[in-house]
Amino acid sequence: MAILLTGITAATMRGGYGLIPDAALLVEGDTIVWLGPRTDAPKAETLDFPGKLLTPGLIDAHTHLVFAGNRAAEFELRLQGASYEEIARRGGGILSTVTATRAATEDDLVTQSLPRLDAMIAAGTTTVEIKSGYGLTIADELKMLRAARRLSALRPVTITTTHLAAHAIPPEYKGRPDTYIEEVAIPSLRAAHAEGLIDAVDAFCETIAFTPAQVDRLFTAARALGLRVKLHAEQLSDQGGAQLAARHAALSADHLEHLSPEGVADMARAGTVATILPGAFYTLRDTQPPPIAALRAAGVPMAVATDCNPGSSPMTSLPLAMNMACTLFRMTPEEALLGATAHAARALGLTDRGTLAVGQRADLALWNLTHPAELSYRIGAEALHKSIIGGRLDA
Amino acid sequence: MAILLTGITAATMRGGYGLIPDAALLVEGDTIVWLGPRTDAPKAETLDFPGKLLTPGLIDAHTHLVFAGNRAAEFELRLQGASYEEIARRGGGILSTVTATRAATEDDLVTQSLPRLDAMIAAGTTTVEIKSGYGLTIADELKMLRAARRLSALRPVTITTTHLAAHAIPPEYKGRPDTYIEEVAIPSLRAAHAEGLIDAVDAFCETIAFTPAQVDRLFTAARALGLRVKLHAEQLSDQGGAQLAARHAALSADHLEHLSPEGVADMARAGTVATILPGAFYTLRDTQPPPIAALRAAGVPMAVATDCNPGSSPMTSLPLAMNMACTLFRMTPEEALLGATAHAARALGLTDRGTLAVGQRADLALWNLTHPAELSYRIGAEALHKSIIGGRLDA
Ligand SMILES: [Zn+2]
Ligand SMILES: [Zn+2]
Repeated sequence: MAILLTGITAATMRGGYGLIPDAALLVEGDTIVWLGPRTDAPKAETLDFPGKLLTPGLIDAHTHLVFAGNRAAEFELRLQGASYEEIARRGGGILSTVTATRAATEDDLVTQSLPRLDAMIAAGTTTVEIKSGYGLTIADELKMLRAARRLSALRPVTITTTHLAAHAIPPEYKGRPDTYIEEVAIPSLRAAHAEGLIDAVDAFCETIAFTPAQVDRLFTAARALGLRVKLHAEQLSDQGGAQLAARHAALSADHLEHLSPEGVADMARAGTVATILPGAFYTLRDTQPPPIAALRAAGVPMAVATDCNPGSSPMTSLPLAMNMACTLFRMTPEEALLGATAHAARALGLTDRGTLAVGQRADLALWNLTHPAELSYRIGAEALHKSIIGGRLDA
Repeated sequence: MAILLTGITAATMRGGYGLIPDAALLVEGDTIVWLGPRTDAPKAETLDFPGKLLTPGLIDAHTHLVFAGNRAAEFELRLQGASYEEIARRGGGILSTVTATRAATEDDLVTQSLPRLDAMIAAGTTTVEIKSGYGLTIADELKMLRAARRLSALRPVTITTTHLAAHAIPPEYKGRPDTYIEEVAIPSLRAAHAEGLIDAVDAFCETIAFTPAQVDRLFTAARALGLRVKLHAEQLSDQGGAQLAARHAALSADHLEHLSPEGVADMARAGTVATILPGAFYTLRDTQPPPIAALRAAGVPMAVATDCNPGSSPMTSLPLAMNMACTLFRMTPEEALLGATAHAARALGLTDRGTLAVGQRADLALWNLTHPAELSYRIGAEALHKSIIGGRLDA
């Protein structure tokens, strides 16, 4: 049965805000079947949301939502003056999350990750990408991906999963990254793909992680399986990761603080989305922002995501990430909202969401706001009135 | 009837975290009547909160919560490249909020401010200071303060009100700040006090606002009425505001990015709290942090607040302000939580709250967390399980 939503200002996000004042939107099943000025709307059962702003449900295109434990003790030690060496000696850093995640059962991972997913949903998110990458063994990577898939059965949101075994080199492969790629990253990729556990493949290309040549090997294996790739690129230094990503027709290259002009040009040519992650920049007190003006000038679509992770971005709110993208990186509020809707969908290879249009999936967010710029203006807009996910009014 | 809360880890915030693992806390009426290890607890009707962290309800000691309109359009214009002059020409800046607030009725102010108060409560806040300062006429300052008092009747939280007519010089007094102090600031102070509308008096001491001599005149009038004072001091430049505040035995001096060593020493001697406001620093992309290490060394108690306001800090979450205080200013998570509890109470002159202790008011926050450091570690911890305000379990 079709339901007509009225009383709303609609931000369609087709090319920009694409505002329709006093709009109506007709949902049938999980699909938008009509959209336009209320006065032209077809007759149907009506639900009125007077004064609410309607946007596409937000899409978080880069998260590490599934992990065990947290790193609050390390955060506190550092602020008490402990050095990085001292923290590493006490078992801090990413390897502490790897240790906790390996020790956790699949059930533990689901239980510990669900409150984070619920916080995201409460902030307006309706589609979430989740990466593996804290297991770093074949079995533990599969366990993380299965936990991510199980989360999607527990909530009405869509979860897309990304294989990220090439996230860090575990202690048992220290100094042998090529062997790790050969023995863990590629085999876990194949096993996860065979089990239907992954939608895309990611890697961390950095001096402290994997070289472009190692990533190239992994991406070649991924593409042979018909999988799309994305890359943590140019976060701490310019490794030419964006060029590598573009060469593999990557969905996105992410972080990009040290992206070169050549990288921008290659991404533009390849249609690769730039996923902007201000949470990590903020937490790490980075000083070099990604080249937003150059990306804008080159027409590279920019996504904005939380990067939700226990070390550099313990954050679940996409509106907060949007505010940071504006305040720290000088993106416009319109770019930030495109980055959490239309461009985020593109970063995930999804064509059925991210805008309000006939035929699109009815993933909708209704806000206690009058203009979409307010979503970025507030420091973490806690303004969600209601989500409608896949047309479900009870969500 | 007394209720015993169990299952909790209690952070008493007496001197530091003051953790009691496996604690019990007995509430009778609106008061804490017993607190200690669960095994020693008196017999009483019990409410179990297994695995929850208990802290004092959070206290937001510096907000401009009551105002009309918002400044999203100005935020967006600036990010689109408009100059400050252009924005001022289009009616932006604090005066746009003054115009909207003057045009609003008392009812409008209550209606528009209530969602912000609710967002604060949802983030764990149980006591909120609210300042006037967007009216800048006698009638409009009184209207703002009455709206703040009415909010406290609508929600179980405590609201303390601060007179801040000396916030900005309105257009009709341009170039005549002394006359404004004489004709509006002091008379509105006396009228508000006569009506029982204010708990403290504040001013903005800055080149773009009022001089120390003008503030001194206002503070002298305030103290003659038996009112305590506080000051927006040293935010943009060193005006010697902290020394002035200390001379008037101020409850707090707030912002303090440009505080001098002499100011630190005077505040320490006077027992004046330093209220740290990272939201404005973040939004204004300020580069000089307040001298946290010097304040710490001098034993000046530090509060942390949202500074909730439509221009430089459109933020309602105290846990987010705590994260910013740690990340941007290198406060420790323990200092940040003291800043939102015990030291915030002191910044408001309240002695009945801010810690968990027998005889204190039963304003409590129960969190889905295991250690209080997690409140600051997350970028905006959305982790409140339940508030208990004035002993009300239904709050
Ligand atoms: Zn990442
Ligand atoms: Zn203020």
